[in-house]
Order: sequence, then C-alpha cells, then structure tokens
Amino acid sequence: MSVPAITDAKYVLEEKMDEAISDFPNGPLDIYRKKASFSWKDMIRFLEGDEIIAFKQHVFRTLESDPLFARQPGEDIPVEQKRELTFRRCKQLFKYDFVTRDDIMQNPWKMTILNDCLGMYDWSLGAKYFLNKGTFGCFSLTELSHGSNTRALRTTARYDPSTQEFVINSPDFEAAKFWVGNLGKTATHSIVFAQLYTPDGQCHGLHSFVVQVRDPKTLLAMPGVMVGDMGKKLGQNGLDNGFAVFHNVRIPRENLLNKTGDVTPDGRYVSPFKDPNKRFGASLGALSGGRVSITRMALVNLKLAMTVAVRFSATRRQFGPKEDEEIPVLEYQLQQWRLIPFLAAVYALEHFTRSFSMNFVEFQIGLLMKDKSDRQAEMGREIHAMSCASKPLGSWTAQRGIQECREACGGHGYLAMNRLGDMRDDNDPNCTYEGDNNVLLQQTSNYLLSWLQHKQEGKGRIESPLETVNFLEDMSSILQSKFTVGSVEECMNSAVPLAAYKWLVCFLLGESQRKLFHEKSSGLGDFEARNNSQVYYCRSLAIAYIEHTVLQRFHDLIKDEQTPAALRSVLGRLCALYGLWTLTNHMAILYQGGYFSGRQPVDFIQTAILALCGQLKDDAVALVDVIAPPDFILNSPIGKADGELYKNLWSTVMQGKNVLERPSWWTEFCSDKPAVASLRAKL
Amino acid sequence: MSVPAITDAKYVLEEKMDEAISDFPNGPLDIYRKKASFSWKDMIRFLEGDEIIAFKQHVFRTLESDPLFARQPGEDIPVEQKRELTFRRCKQLFKYDFVTRDDIMQNPWKMTILNDCLGMYDWSLGAKYFLNKGTFGCFSLTELSHGSNTRALRTTARYDPSTQEFVINSPDFEAAKFWVGNLGKTATHSIVFAQLYTPDGQCHGLHSFVVQVRDPKTLLAMPGVMVGDMGKKLGQNGLDNGFAVFHNVRIPRENLLNKTGDVTPDGRYVSPFKDPNKRFGASLGALSGGRVSITRMALVNLKLAMTVAVRFSATRRQFGPKEDEEIPVLEYQLQQWRLIPFLAAVYALEHFTRSFSMNFVEFQIGLLMKDKSDRQAEMGREIHAMSCASKPLGSWTAQRGIQECREACGGHGYLAMNRLGDMRDDNDPNCTYEGDNNVLLQQTSNYLLSWLQHKQEGKGRIESPLETVNFLEDMSSILQSKFTVGSVEECMNSAVPLAAYKWLVCFLLGESQRKLFHEKSSGLGDFEARNNSQVYYCRSLAIAYIEHTVLQRFHDLIKDEQTPAALRSVLGRLCALYGLWTLTNHMAILYQGGYFSGRQPVDFIQTAILALCGQLKDDAVALVDVIAPPDFILNSPIGKADGELYKNLWSTVMQGKNVLERPSWWTEFCSDKPAVASLRAKL
Repeated sequence: MSVPAITDAKYVLEEKMDEAISDFPNGPLDIYRKKASFSWKDMIRFLEGDEIIAFKQHVFRTLESDPLFARQPGEDIPVEQKRELTFRRCKQLFKYDFVTRDDIMQNPWKMTILNDCLGMYDWSLGAKYFLNKGTFGCFSLTELSHGSNTRALRTTARYDPSTQEFVINSPDFEAAKFWVGNLGKTATHSIVFAQLYTPDGQCHGLHSFVVQVRDPKTLLAMPGVMVGDMGKKLGQNGLDNGFAVFHNVRIPRENLLNKTGDVTPDGRYVSPFKDPNKRFGASLGALSGGRVSITRMALVNLKLAMTVAVRFSATRRQFGPKEDEEIPVLEYQLQQWRLIPFLAAVYALEHFTRSFSMNFVEFQIGLLMKDKSDRQAEMGREIHAMSCASKPLGSWTAQRGIQECREACGGHGYLAMNRLGDMRDDNDPNCTYEGDNNVLLQQTSNYLLSWLQHKQEGKGRIESPLETVNFLEDMSSILQSKFTVGSVEECMNSAVPLAAYKWLVCFLLGESQRKLFHEKSSGLGDFEARNNSQVYYCRSLAIAYIEHTVLQRFHDLIKDEQTPAALRSVLGRLCALYGLWTLTNHMAILYQGGYFSGRQPVDFIQTAILALCGQLKDDAVALVDVIAPPDFILNSPIGKADGELYKNLWSTVMQGKNVLERPSWWTEFCSDKPAVASLRAKL
Repeated sequence: MSVPAITDAKYVLEEKMDEAISDFPNGPLDIYRKKASFSWKDMIRFLEGDEIIAFKQHVFRTLESDPLFARQPGEDIPVEQKRELTFRRCKQLFKYDFVTRDDIMQNPWKMTILNDCLGMYDWSLGAKYFLNKGTFGCFSLTELSHGSNTRALRTTARYDPSTQEFVINSPDFEAAKFWVGNLGKTATHSIVFAQLYTPDGQCHGLHSFVVQVRDPKTLLAMPGVMVGDMGKKLGQNGLDNGFAVFHNVRIPRENLLNKTGDVTPDGRYVSPFKDPNKRFGASLGALSGGRVSITRMALVNLKLAMTVAVRFSATRRQFGPKEDEEIPVLEYQLQQWRLIPFLAAVYALEHFTRSFSMNFVEFQIGLLMKDKSDRQAEMGREIHAMSCASKPLGSWTAQRGIQECREACGGHGYLAMNRLGDMRDDNDPNCTYEGDNNVLLQQTSNYLLSWLQHKQEGKGRIESPLETVNFLEDMSSILQSKFTVGSVEECMNSAVPLAAYKWLVCFLLGESQRKLFHEKSSGLGDFEARNNSQVYYCRSLAIAYIEHTVLQRFHDLIKDEQTPAALRSVLGRLCALYGLWTLTNHMAILYQGGYFSGRQPVDFIQTAILALCGQLKDDAVALVDVIAPPDFILNSPIGKADGELYKNLWSTVMQGKNVLERPSWWTEFCSDKPAVASLRAKL
C-alpha cells in the first residue's frame, strides 16, 4: 500500500494562522456565530497556541486526504473488517510518524494532542497505534477471574536454574489473561504479569515478563500458548482485545523485566526494594499515567458530543411563540440547562487535563533524573490521588453528557450516522479500565485521610506540591464558614461555589474519619470498616476533592493576568456555571452540615445557574467551534459546521447501502406474507 | 420454511406449577438462594398468577425449541441480515399465534405479557410483530424536520372532487416522513398523517390516510412514492425504520380515516367535533396507549439488566478480609447501594405498570362502550397525565439502571456477549419516541396546574378516578407537615417517604404556579412564561407526582390483605428503599421548603437506605430469580441461572467466530510490520 506524498510533512509554522483557523461556511449557524460575545479564534489561540493548532490541522488534513481513512457516517462494518481496517490505518500512521522522539522531548503535550486527534477520528485506532508504538505488543495483566484485585492474579513464572529459564503457566482457564488490548489478532509479544517463584518454592509477588505469543513470520500461536480474540465489545471494535492461556511456556531468564526485582542465574531473588509493599507499588506505578490520559480521553468524547448537540440545537426549530414561527430548541431554557453545563464542564476539564498533564510530565522528569527528594515522593502520592479521582470524574461526566446529548438530539440522535452511539460506546470503558471508578476513588480518600491523620498526629505541615490539599490547613476555620451570599448576581461568580467546595471537602473529610472510627469502634476490622464508610462518606469526599481541584484551577486561570481580557467574561461565566452546577449534587450535605440554611441558598444557586445558561446560550455555538474537529473527523451529519442539518442528514441517508432497493428476500415476503387481513379493515 | 410441530400449542393449565417453575441447577448461587428470606416461587405466583406463568413458559419454550430463534451471545450480525432474520421470525410468530382475539378479550394483560416475552428475546421482533399484527403496515407521522411539534407537519392531502381522490404530497425533503417503523423494507401500506385541504383552499388540520407505498407483489415502490431505509440505528436494528416522500400520490377518498372528520364527494369538510382543538386531541388520542406500554417495556429492560448484574455480583469474588479468601462483590456495601435500589425500582414499577395497564383497559372499555360520563372524561385526562410522566420515569430509571449494571459488571459488562450493551441501546428510544421525555412532562404539570386552578376558582371538588391527585385536597394542611421521624428504624418504612412525597408534590405545585404567575407578571407571554418555569419547577413537579403515585400504589399493595403475609416483609423493604432512594433526588427542595431541618433527616435517610440494602442483599438473587427469563431468552453468559460465571463466559468466548484463527490479512501483517524496534529494547 502506497502512502500519499506528504509534501507538507512538517507543518509550516509560518503559515498564517488565518489559514489554519479558517472561517466557517455561511449558513443557519451564522445567527449564533454573530451573536457570540467573544472571538472563537482568539479563544482557540489562547487555549491551544499556534503551534498546536497547526499540528492538529496537519494531522487532520493528512487523514482526510488519505483514501485509506475515508468513511461513511453510520456505515455498518463487521467486527472482523473493523479490525483489519484499524490494522491498515495503524500501519499508515507509522509511516506518517506525526510525532518524533525529538518532538516529544521538545513538547510532550504533542503526544496527548496526537492521541486527541486520533481519538476524535476513532479511539480504536489511537489505542492500537499507541500500543504498537509503545511496546510493539501488549500488556497481559487482568485475568478472567481477577481485575481490580491484581495481587490475587494466578499466572505463575517459576524459575528453572537448570536451563536458566522461567516457566510461564496458567493454572486453569480462570487464570487466562483476559482483556488484553492488541492481543486478539496481531501481537507477537506480550508483557505478562505473573507471580514469580524461585526454586526454593517462595513466591516473590507480581513481576512482568516478555513472552512471545505468536510467530512473527506466520502469526501462528507459539507452542504452549493458546491465544485468541475475545469477540465483540460494546465499542472500540477496531481494537482486538484478546486472551492467552500459557501451558508451561519457557522463556529466557533475561525476559524478566528487572526494574523491580531480579533472579540470579542460580535462582536467588534480589530486589532493589526492601519492603515488598513498595515493590508491588513500584511494579504497578508504571500504570498511573494511564489515568491522566483517560481523563483527557473522556473529555475528548464529551467535546465531540457537545459539538453535535449544540449545533443541532441551534438549527433544529420546534414550536414558537407564534403559530407560524418556530424557534431553535437552544432557545428553550430547559434545553440550555440540559446542555450548557456540560459545555462548561468541557472548558473546566480542558484546563484541568492540560495543567494536570504538565504536572505529570514534571513528575516523570523527576523519575528520569532519579530525584529522591521528599517533594518528588509527595508529588507522586498527590498525582496518584488526583488521577484516581479525575478518571472517575472525567469518564462519568462524559458518560452523562453524551447520554444527555443523545437524548437532546431526539430521534436523530438515535441514528448511528450521527455518531452519538459510538461516542457513548467508546467512552464507556473509561469508567472501567485502569481501575474501576468506584474502586479507584478509595485511593483518593485514603490519601486525604492519611493527610488528616498526619496533621492530627502533629507531624508537621506537608507541603502539597500541586497545592490541592493546602487549603485543608485551615480546615477548622473553613468549617466555621457559612453561605452568606446576598443576591443572585453575587452568586454568579465562581468564588461562591469555590468557597462552598472548600467547606464541603473539609466537612466530608471530618465525617469520613469519624465514620471510620465509629465502624472500627463498633468492632469491625479494617477491611469491613473501610467498606462501610464508602457510600455517602469516602466516595463523596473523593469526588468533592477533585471537583474542588478542577474548579480551583479554572478559577485561577481566569484571575491569571496572562488570560486575555476579552475572554475573561465568557470563561468566568463557564467557571461559575460549572462550579454551581456540580455543587447542586451536594446540596443535601451542605444543608446537613449547616453550611446552607433557609431557602435562599437553593433559590440563589438555581436562579444563578439558569441566568448563566441564558447568558451563555448565544456563545454556545462559538464555544463548540473552538473545540470541534473538522467535519471529516467529526463524521456526524447533524454536527457539521455549516449547520445545514437536514441537507446533511438527508444526503447521508441517501448514500446508505441499498437504501431504496427492496431486500434480497423480497420474493419470500411477497409469496408468503405474515398476515392477510387488509389494513383498512383493521381500522 | 416449516414450523416445528406444536403438540402443546395450548399450554396446559393443569400442568403442575412445580414443572412450570422449575428449580434452578445447583451451583455458586446456592449460597444466596438458601439465604433468601422468602420463597421465590411464592413470589412469582403472587405477582404473575399461574395462568400467566404457564403462558410465559409456553412462549419461551416454543421460541427455544425452534431453530429459527437460535442465536449465539454477542454474535456480530450485519444490519441487513438482522432485518431479514427479524422478518422471518416475525412470520413464524404469526404462525404460532400465541394470543388470539378471544384470549385478549378474556385477559387483555396477555397482550402485554406477550410483548414482554418477545422484548426479552429481542425488542425489534416485538415491535415488528405488533406493527404487523396491529395494522399490517406502519404509522407515518414524524417528518425529517418535525417531531414533537406535530401541528407543524407539512405533508398535504388535497382533495380533488373531479376524481374523488386525495393527492398526498411532500412539499420538500424536509417534510419526508421519517422514523417510520416497519417502513424501511417491507410495509406495503402506511397510515400517513397529513394536513387536509378542501378544494376551497382551507386547511382542516392533521388527518390520517391509508396510502399504498409498495406493490405487494413485487415490493417495488408505488409511482410517486420514494420509500427507503433510514440505515443503522444505535439499537433495535432488526426493525426497519424508513422514510417516505410523496410526489402527488393519488388515493381514493375512502382512504381518509374518518373518525375525526370527513370530506363529502363534492369536497365539503364535515366533522363530528366543533372545536378544532378537540379534533386535534382526538386524532392523536389513539397514541396515548403507547406510553403505558413503553413504561412497561423500559421496566422489562431493567429486569434483564438487573438479572445479569445481580447474578454476576453474587458470583464474582474480589478482595476479602483475609489474603486468601475473596468475597462476592455483592457483599460490598457500595455494590449493594449501586444495584439494590434499582431492584427495588423493578418491583415498584412492576406493580405500577400492571395496575396502570388495568386502568387503561378500563378506560378503553369505556371508549368502546361510548361512555360519555364525566368520570370517563376525567379518567382520560388523568391517564394522559400519568402516562406522560410514567414513560419518562420508566425509561430514565431503566437507562440509569442498565448503565449502572454495565459498570457494576466491570470489563465483562463491556463484552457484547453479556448483552448489557444491547439492553442499553434497545432501551434508549424509550426516552424519545411517543414524545420526548422532557416535552411530555409538561403535559403532566399542566394537568396538575389546571387541577389547582380549578380548585382555587372554587369550581368544586374533582373526583380523580384513579386517585392520584385526591390527596391534593388537603394541600394546605400537608404543606404544614414536617419530617418528624425519630430514629433510623422508624425511617425504614415506606410511610416516611410517602409522607415526604405528599409534601413535595404540594410544595412543587404551589411553587410552579407562583413561578408561572411571576413570569407572566414580569411581562412574558404564555409561551415564554411556561418555558421559563420548567427547570426546577414544573419538570420536578411532574416527576415527583409520578414517583408519589408509584410509591403510593406499592405501599397500598403491601397493606392489602390479599398480599401473602410471608412476602410482606421483603416487599415492605423494597417499597421503603424505593421511596427513600428516589426521595434523595429531592433533598435540597425538602430543606429549601422547610420540610427538613437540621442534620437528622439526611442522616436517618442515608442510614436507612444502607440498612435496607444490607437486609435485602441476601434476597437479591431470589428477587432476580422471580423476574428473570430462562437462560435461552436472557442470552447472557454472566447472567445464567447456574451462576457458573467463568465457565459460561469462557465457553462462549471459545465459540466465537475465528476465535483462534489468525486474521485473513496475516500475510500483509507479517510481510510489512508497522514497526521494527524490538519489544525488549523499548523497556
């Protein structure tokens, strides 16, 4: 397969931004575009920067001009063919080599942006590309009967000193490696996590080994390996998830990845770690970056869905104040309230995921530089706590947002061609992989509870490198604060929900600790006490903590003097709306703990939310213009930038396969109809 | 195609119930089955009755023994083939003729049960069967650019007295009939809704006409009709939704369905209604039964999903108090809290949909008997108000419940073979068709506001035939009531949420009326004032009203002396849990309006919810045994009745297509791999 000539392989930065950010075609969306309170071009340049804008354009245009990436909205492609297509496209991406190692060193954010771009096109492709780029293989961790509880994984790697080999074995089918991305059809090698046993019969816990699973010349399974495809998933079917069962497969001693422990040729175990708990943590540590990345991926899904739903709502007209004039459904307060808070969430999470990724890069540099400082260690803990809550927040916000978009587009949202189903299906695993959302949240509350205990034990102030918990130093005075807003206008400011969130996190932290004490003092062990403190306590605490962090960062961005004055107003509204809207999930607690009293708090907050939605509705189209990929990438007739809703939908329907043809089984229908009664007679 | 011999076509009622309700195979679910506080067989006999149990068994067994209905979990079937399969199966159902006209007259509930059974197998099949059975055609109402606003539909039917024909015409493609179920591939006739014009140029509004769209001998489109398939949807792809464009298609005058108006041969319009508004209402009135039915269909989806998730949770073990012992995830309070309230919702909605369907039958009998009483008219209004809120409640509860089940089953819930994706996709249109949920809720609040206005105008008491609003007579005293529960134990009773709901409906009704007055007095017209009173007011009112109704009926059932004593305890817990759990969505309002104050209400309610979940967890498996269809119908390996989670999952994976085979494109992969770096070097 030949690669189209890339004359412009390195996008030209000197190229005028006006060309990179081209104007939209005139059409039904003009009304709103003209009403916008800000310039969408200024916004995109502020958020992305010119280099990234040009880079994205380059990636998008390259895909669009390559026939291998052509597709039809809503086409019905069998799973087998999706896997083939994804393989071919993935191969092509390696030829395009959009981001070189030098590019990444110079600007690590480009890696995320490339993932954004590929994901906007198709998440399966992005996943397959990065799995192949990262390891030319796959990670075999989860087993059929174990996911979250990784310590209980049962695959073994026994060292045989007589041949200096490890013997990899699955005790039974329940220990089959399962859900391994890229393993279903093509991976030739896998990193397999297994319990390491030395010849003395001692188990040293989970370690990772490189195991060849297929012959690269024939793609046939290696002897002793049963490897295959798990079948159809709800989404991301371009990616071949697979399973593997190992029957005493021998691999050289060198195939143990020995960062966390090694075995000498004669079979003695040596480890750089003294504490086996630390070793376990380190061997899984490599996975924590995944959650940072998933938070972003979920956001990208929400961007796609919001683009479709807002453009649809701005062009779909239904009912109106007069018989003969219908108004866009975006003009209805109810539709605004359903969609615009999710648009605010997009902007809040956009800034959060960007800044958080930068934090993570800083942390990784520390790792590479072998930084042994307290700050580096503390940052590791803080990032772990943040990512264990940001992934749930991001994936659930996207899940709910996409569903709301699907419903907000009515029947047309239910047509496969408009892509909201794929977005929902492709986002879904973000709630599950790299740690189930509900299980992960416990990591975050554990971090906060440890922080509190440390403080209470008088062990001195812990500097929080990313400043997400510093405000807890003032916990006792924060807990004295009350909601004292005097008007709706005053409420339309992010400072109001921000103050409420500070109280909320402090309150839930105190309550969670009390609840744990109470459970333990009633005789429960640690395990049960923790389990019985999740609902309404630790779980809510972790969610409130990350919502506070996202809100704080967005709030700070607006105060930042580098933020263009012309954009502060709209960003300030988005920030206030996001904060007030997420806060409404916690109103019972705010009353329960006495932060709210009387009817004013709810009155003010509800009125402020609706007022902000009303102020933002004329900006909504411009706000999605900033986050929308080109039409070719979005691939949704009702979400196209020209706003020609019905023309685009109709012409796509007309291009459907066999759209006007009678079915192949028509003779059977005509010769032997299911019923004979006439229609007329039945009515 | 031959039909397998039906030796047992009429199920034998004398057959011992012990055979109809057979015991489950022994296995991992035994632990919970033995712990249940009640007999699942007693429960199913109480809820369904022996006749219905036998009927369901008959339908299920007939499908299972017919090879045409065989299927493999998670198989990847192209849309075209799904439509063909559904057509064939539908034809077979006509041969089985499970419910005769006599059966329906004798027990109309059987029609619903048959729809339940077919839906549990595949909703597309149920829809296609009933569309063909009901009309041998389809309903063409919605157009490409109009759905909710049916009055603005643009298809015309102009009467031509010279030939005594109507001329059906679509002014442009935006007026194409769209989303018509059964029209995509096979319908030969359609009921088309069009604006009727008489020769004097006057428009008489929407009427329905029988239009032949395809030649029954060839399935080719009739001249002037462009008819085709809309393409792939998110779900229900066995049903062929289609579109139709009419280009001056002539039909005989008799094809006007003249229940709501007629045209004389010379072209004069005659109507049995004087008020055109009433005529419009009557011509759409026929559609109101759909919502009663959809409420039930959504419930059926939730039953399927709960069966899968509860059986999974009872057999999936992960972590435990000791290193070497893992406990079922159902033992975790968090998992209980995620799932068991939805199980309570199943039981609440089971009773509600059943009793509501009976109400609807009573109403239909009144229509047939031409009952012109006030009570009949009032019942029509009440049923309309109830169905416009019960459809949103049912479809959203199912939507959220299925999603929670999907996530609660972790990665395995994301495998297509476990069917949670299909349940979600097939349930989704319930939120949209027969009226968008959010739009419909306005009908309910309008009804309640009219009721209040009538009362305030001193027009006397309106007897509410179904007693859903009678309690509002005591509105002013109810509004004086407060939450006065003194302990968690006292809170674990459905009387507590029931009292709270009465206050809530009264409060929201008063607030909604005030809000509307306020908007109007600030100068807004009716249209705008109504739009601005939906969020937090009318919409919440409608939801609270229907939740109250569902809870009240469930509460009454438990008090009913016909309810077996042995079942009251578990039903009482389910009822209390359902009420308290749905009430948590309204806690801010309960504080805002002063029904709650201090921290006790939230403390008590949250603790009561968790305590009820804890009490019900040992009953959960038996509670899904009552609602579960046979394994063949459920078609979900992780949801099978034997609880052999991993064996069933693994054997289904192994039966996948080409599961162990290398892909057909292996040579391309092997000859030209995407990357050359070795895996080892990268690590």
